[in-house]
Amino acid sequence: MKIDFLTLFPEMFHGVLNESILKKAQEKEAVQFRVINFREYSTNKHKNVDDYPYGGGAGMVLTPQPIFDAVDEIRKQAETEPKVILVCPQGERFTQTKAEQLATEDHLLFICGHYEGYDERIREHLVTDEISIGDFVLTGGELASMVITDSVVRLLPGVLGNEDSPVQDSYSSGLLEHPHYTRPADFRGMVVPDVLLSGNHKRIEEWREEESLRRTFQRRPDLLKTYPLTEKQKSFIKQWENEK
Amino acid sequence: MKIDFLTLFPEMFHGVLNESILKKAQEKEAVQFRVINFREYSTNKHKNVDDYPYGGGAGMVLTPQPIFDAVDEIRKQAETEPKVILVCPQGERFTQTKAEQLATEDHLLFICGHYEGYDERIREHLVTDEISIGDFVLTGGELASMVITDSVVRLLPGVLGNEDSPVQDSYSSGLLEHPHYTRPADFRGMVVPDVLLSGNHKRIEEWREEESLRRTFQRRPDLLKTYPLTEKQKSFIKQWENEK
Repeated sequence: MKIDFLTLFPEMFHGVLNESILKKAQEKEAVQFRVINFREYSTNKHKNVDDYPYGGGAGMVLTPQPIFDAVDEIRKQAETEPKVILVCPQGERFTQTKAEQLATEDHLLFICGHYEGYDERIREHLVTDEISIGDFVLTGGELASMVITDSVVRLLPGVLGNEDSPVQDSYSSGLLEHPHYTRPADFRGMVVPDVLLSGNHKRIEEWREEESLRRTFQRRPDLLKTYPLTEKQKSFIKQWENEK
Repeated sequence: MKIDFLTLFPEMFHGVLNESILKKAQEKEAVQFRVINFREYSTNKHKNVDDYPYGGGAGMVLTPQPIFDAVDEIRKQAETEPKVILVCPQGERFTQTKAEQLATEDHLLFICGHYEGYDERIREHLVTDEISIGDFVLTGGELASMVITDSVVRLLPGVLGNEDSPVQDSYSSGLLEHPHYTRPADFRGMVVPDVLLSGNHKRIEEWREEESLRRTFQRRPDLLKTYPLTEKQKSFIKQWENEK
């Protein structure tokens, strides 16, 4: 997979793309990153990339020219048509399902604005996907594009070795994770539940399933609406509802 | 405000914390960052920070000792009690409202795990806030803690100068932004709406309000449920509903 970032702040990316899983993914040639300062594409003699909004108002708006020209250049070099992704608060909400879809693509191209608005023609005529990572305001699209990149790249074949596999991914099972404990069994008087020290694998498995269900019931009851509950799980939930 | 990050990947933070608004916020002394590798606090002779899970299973679990000791040390030096934040998929969903709450704090301390699970005693006895930025799986808490930091720090007094102010923040008005346009008026045959070139400020304002409402209606109808709609806005919505 190729992932390109168009940004005015290329320095923001270095540390994130060259550590941990994203570094390993590059070493394994599962992904190639390019961070491109789209200011370089400005035909303006001062290399400006923004201008005042038509109709007046505060703030600046990114002009179409540098971003269109940068995307044209990338498309011209590319073997396959890239997904052109605008990260913005108005986009489709990013979820694990969207991460799985993007992981099947050959080429992602993120347009990262910063402070400013985007000229609407970028949104209408250039972009294939608008994605929001949540209902909060960020200074720019850079961090959001790194978040999406991390969640997508770790799904690419061969990227996560066994040694990196999470204990259990929340969401991949549809329920939240059960609690984890490791040594020491007693840390400052805080002790590990007896069942986990029992060596009884059947009881441990039952405890984990119950705790996973309990945590989901307490924190994310919305996830239970679409989860295929067993009869036993339904009876646990009925009991907890009565206790409330 | 003081913001500390406990992480095993300190290099991930440098580029993000030292560019753009987060850099300016440090220069203006609105915020002080510390990035601390909690491996340094491990009393284990190999400086290990994780161990196998009690009860068996794949993956590793962060042990309580290094993280408890690092937090103890930070608390000892601190003038006020820090918020101790675990970024994890099971936490409270991060929103702009939560960003505004955190912006009133003196001291935030993020615990960033990576791949591994956390020993439950960290969650139960050390952490004051568990926060999730969304329903997707990340390799670690680092990017999520940077996202939260960006959205909080830009709210601190004096951080955003006028030159940095966004055209209009989505969510701060309760509706999505209207479209923005800047020069040229005709770019490759794509033209700016006439109204924005009219110089008629009343009509421009009306157009923007209608487009902001229309976009929210099309993309985030959930936001309209709690928005105090005027009679005029209600009649627009009725009209669009009939058109569907």
